[in-house]
Amino acid sequence: MAFSFEILHTDGRARHGRMHTPHGVVETPVFMPVGTQAAVKGLTPRQVADAGARIVLGNTYHLALRPGDDVVAAMGGLHRFMGWDGPILTDSGGFQIYSLAPTRKITDEAAVFRSHIDGSLLELTPERAVAIQENLGSDIAMCLDECPPFGTAPDYMAVAVRRTLLWAKRCRESHKRADQVLFAIVQGGFDLALRARCADELRALDFPGYALGGFSVGETAEQMAAALVPTAELLPAEKPRYLMGVGRPEDLLAAVMAGIDMCDCVLPTRNGRNACAFTDSGQVRIRNACHERDPAPLESGCGCYTCVHFSRAYLHHLFLAKEMLGPTLLSLHNVAFYCRLMADIREAIARGQLGKLQEARLARWRGSL
Amino acid sequence: MAFSFEILHTDGRARHGRMHTPHGVVETPVFMPVGTQAAVKGLTPRQVADAGARIVLGNTYHLALRPGDDVVAAMGGLHRFMGWDGPILTDSGGFQIYSLAPTRKITDEAAVFRSHIDGSLLELTPERAVAIQENLGSDIAMCLDECPPFGTAPDYMAVAVRRTLLWAKRCRESHKRADQVLFAIVQGGFDLALRARCADELRALDFPGYALGGFSVGETAEQMAAALVPTAELLPAEKPRYLMGVGRPEDLLAAVMAGIDMCDCVLPTRNGRNACAFTDSGQVRIRNACHERDPAPLESGCGCYTCVHFSRAYLHHLFLAKEMLGPTLLSLHNVAFYCRLMADIREAIARGQLGKLQEARLARWRGSL
Repeated sequence: MAFSFEILHTDGRARHGRMHTPHGVVETPVFMPVGTQAAVKGLTPRQVADAGARIVLGNTYHLALRPGDDVVAAMGGLHRFMGWDGPILTDSGGFQIYSLAPTRKITDEAAVFRSHIDGSLLELTPERAVAIQENLGSDIAMCLDECPPFGTAPDYMAVAVRRTLLWAKRCRESHKRADQVLFAIVQGGFDLALRARCADELRALDFPGYALGGFSVGETAEQMAAALVPTAELLPAEKPRYLMGVGRPEDLLAAVMAGIDMCDCVLPTRNGRNACAFTDSGQVRIRNACHERDPAPLESGCGCYTCVHFSRAYLHHLFLAKEMLGPTLLSLHNVAFYCRLMADIREAIARGQLGKLQEARLARWRGSL
Repeated sequence: MAFSFEILHTDGRARHGRMHTPHGVVETPVFMPVGTQAAVKGLTPRQVADAGARIVLGNTYHLALRPGDDVVAAMGGLHRFMGWDGPILTDSGGFQIYSLAPTRKITDEAAVFRSHIDGSLLELTPERAVAIQENLGSDIAMCLDECPPFGTAPDYMAVAVRRTLLWAKRCRESHKRADQVLFAIVQGGFDLALRARCADELRALDFPGYALGGFSVGETAEQMAAALVPTAELLPAEKPRYLMGVGRPEDLLAAVMAGIDMCDCVLPTRNGRNACAFTDSGQVRIRNACHERDPAPLESGCGCYTCVHFSRAYLHHLFLAKEMLGPTLLSLHNVAFYCRLMADIREAIARGQLGKLQEARLARWRGSL
């Protein structure tokens, strides 16, 4: 098995580690840009790598629908298909069934839903979720989980956890691919007892990595930070811990301080497409008129292609002129910003100064709001 | 003056030359990708250069309207603004007044038109067209011309030529910038006598380069090729000859064989955005279902980033999934295709084998239609 995880340094609950995968080594904590449909939106794989990303995420639900995992497999797997030879993590589709599919019926056997593309009726079982991800050939696959939205009634949350556990077992049993590892997902919302039960049962199955699901929508930064510390502790210390779909820069800091090793989020690319850039002095809305004649880069000191070559005035112009290069250049910077934040975090952990880093960054980010 | 032009080889009427500009040397015949709004649509300057482009075009009309030539000047000029440190040619806005501005009134004094962006009433004089281009700081500026559409009545065409001559003189008189050259534009439609008169009068003014305008819309390939040979001959042999806004790959070949040194056209990027790729075996419509599982690159043997890294199946998927990376990757390939065609043409001229190259290419391109 080409997969392993080692912890190099700790600072409080935070860990600086190294994850070995069949497609290379990833330093953790790591941010994974989202390549939903086999592309990080607006960026070439070369631009994604130049921005500092080492591992990207692909979405099982989207890729199974289009182009189809059989097509991706026939084209040599997801790495070759999308031209990314670094590690790839694929999610299981559980989250998308709730967030995207317009009608659904979930039983212990399967999730039945309508495609958001053509309305056709589809079925996802744990076995099928694993088979799709084996076809895609990601380095890290995820168990199919049931991920009800924020605010779901506690009674139903218990049902979802029971089903998530049942499905995790079936995923584990059906998973065959030796050059791919399967991570489990802990659900349970903000009910710590439920999370603890879910984590205990999943730990007994000894997965090579564990994720926290259900934190990505609806919660405030404070709610999330408070819930994360006790929840992350439920996961085995020697395995990578992945917080799914989170989040803002301040959330990443909170997650790492709670002991999280991996994060993914669409924010850098989504905000980039919408003319919003993350910088160490807070968010920059590049359409604002104040940037019309601003010769400064988005973020001074940033070494990304966008900041080295272009002024705010130019980026402002691109968005007003509806040039697609604007979304590309802001997405590129935002991915670089997230990756640089994680690199700074890793260095701070190694030096035992993560608390100082958090304090300084939060002060700067908040001061600019 | 940092501008000069030398002819290295000839083959029939075709010339292989070298143009020295304040921002570097350009081998001719050359294709210039169009960066209308200070961006070659969908591509970073790095991608444009990697595709083999050495000189790009900017549109005076668009840039004067947005962001404004004063903004570009304040940001250090067009090269710095758009992050392109190679040579830039700017057109004069004459063509856009006819093709884009919804209402217009043209007198000897000025062209008055409505902005296609906000409907405001604007005026373009020869002096203003020069001043805008001096603000932009392009290496090569163009005289303001009157460019009536294909099919204009002969009587009016004579008026347009008279006005184009009048404006060329005024442009020449008002042009001051020492690190920029001003090219004249020959108009006259398909009336060779009118073209000859226009060319003669412009030659007397001794411009450092001459362009043929009015060939870019409405004509068939045969009409254009037949009209080009006698028209190109009207231009001084020792100066660069620029055919504006043309065209398809077969048009570029015909133009070079008529003695043209420079071409620009939006086709590579426009077709690329519309899922249509140029290849040496003809055009590829990448949305077609036949590409769904095609592991081949767009064009085998092509060394562009797109062809080296991605299959037709992947590009097909990107367009069906509406990923903006699709338009980017096809635009990149198309620009590379045009630049490679011109490089092949230059080599063929040097070897005295341009006729053979034309014959072979036309046979291949037509065979694939």
